[in-house]
Amino acid sequence: MERCNSSNCHKTDSSGGIISVVGTGIGSSENITPRAVNALAAADVIIGYSTYLELIPELLEGKDVITSAMMQEVERCNKAFDLAESGKHVAMVSGGDPGIYAMAGLILEIAVKRKSKVKIDVVPGIAAVNGSAARLGAPLMHDFAAISLSDLLTPWEVITKRLAAAASADFVIALYNPKSKKRAGHIVEARKIILSHRNKDTPVGIVTAASRENEVVRLTTLGKMLEEEITMQSTVIIGNSTTFSWNGYMITPRGYTDKYTLSKRT
Amino acid sequence: MERCNSSNCHKTDSSGGIISVVGTGIGSSENITPRAVNALAAADVIIGYSTYLELIPELLEGKDVITSAMMQEVERCNKAFDLAESGKHVAMVSGGDPGIYAMAGLILEIAVKRKSKVKIDVVPGIAAVNGSAARLGAPLMHDFAAISLSDLLTPWEVITKRLAAAASADFVIALYNPKSKKRAGHIVEARKIILSHRNKDTPVGIVTAASRENEVVRLTTLGKMLEEEITMQSTVIIGNSTTFSWNGYMITPRGYTDKYTLSKRT
Repeated sequence: MERCNSSNCHKTDSSGGIISVVGTGIGSSENITPRAVNALAAADVIIGYSTYLELIPELLEGKDVITSAMMQEVERCNKAFDLAESGKHVAMVSGGDPGIYAMAGLILEIAVKRKSKVKIDVVPGIAAVNGSAARLGAPLMHDFAAISLSDLLTPWEVITKRLAAAASADFVIALYNPKSKKRAGHIVEARKIILSHRNKDTPVGIVTAASRENEVVRLTTLGKMLEEEITMQSTVIIGNSTTFSWNGYMITPRGYTDKYTLSKRT
Repeated sequence: MERCNSSNCHKTDSSGGIISVVGTGIGSSENITPRAVNALAAADVIIGYSTYLELIPELLEGKDVITSAMMQEVERCNKAFDLAESGKHVAMVSGGDPGIYAMAGLILEIAVKRKSKVKIDVVPGIAAVNGSAARLGAPLMHDFAAISLSDLLTPWEVITKRLAAAASADFVIALYNPKSKKRAGHIVEARKIILSHRNKDTPVGIVTAASRENEVVRLTTLGKMLEEEITMQSTVIIGNSTTFSWNGYMITPRGYTDKYTLSKRT
């Protein structure tokens, strides 16, 4: 068993090279933490997908910036290691939180493959699931499951098994990558699986491009959700058996019991 | 079905009163977003649990501050409505993310009970699960379930059913409220349930007081996790069947298949 405080148990080389995997949060820079801003300021080189970097131009001034298309992410990560192993401080930018379905994993997988001893620091950000929940009200007040409908790297049978398990155990369910041109049918099948365990009136929130200029928030139901536009930029949150809608808010109560009253102390 | 962009579909009164439920993130102010800082700056009154407010003294200067003990949270929320309904801009501070097992839900539940039309704005923050995952490396790269072991408001049978469902469907599992003096046995039973579906060598990360001065990060296994200190301030993350440890990092690969290679494009 390994014992450490924060990252000081990691064996690092003496090059002084660092890769900071920096979450810039959702939308514009209003959701970036000071810790993330400081990590970008300390970097010699900033690497990221152009869509994310374009949201934070003021943080790139005077920096060496390497950008590329999403489908080149492996090369992008290897470039980060090439630079860090030569002693550079590299900031790898990830929209949202790099720790949730994002770049932190690929960076560490490549570190293993390269047996790299570069110091790797993951800086958390506001993830799509956190930001989308906030826009909807309070859907994640009780146990929830995050499930990606992308079968690019995961067999569809594994995904459907998880959908059934989460639905049967009454988890609030947050769907990542709900739809793409190649996977238009996944959200239809996912809804069908959940509907076999949950009422058609169950509230469903759909947040697309959370905190961006083109943000769209929709509050609908499991029965009607397919009437709404759902894209690759959408996060779909499906309530549990106690979730309800009120005045445009999606609300999951904190408990199943009446042990607390809202006029006296819990 | 309701249609709205962000919160402008909510029927609000004309008092101009607002309750901003503000997530200050984990630890100190290094994890507070500009949006949260701005919400505090705009507030007439800041209300919160003293433990959280003590972490951000510089943001409270010149403000009316109302603090109280955790067990008075319902009174605290009703006080926020009393003030907002009289036209005040109130910031209700929540550590971490108010949208994950936190204050956003109670505020909205009380709004329903009071039939209040005060404008309610939820400002997301870095949650314990995001911050703990970052400290461990990349444990949440694949589907995960968040489960609270507190049975204060939820029957234990519901919790154990979820633990079994999440474990059987190979979710990474993040445990909130893993242990308290009154619930010392819950983590023991939770581990036993998960162990019936998962190998004893499965990596387990335990992060206590994430990003605070007294932060402790431990990387252990499902077999040995009970040897480590686990407190109410701990988040326990249990890997899925593919999660592994390397150089002090907890890493869940992005996929189950070999469809991507780490030396060529995915």
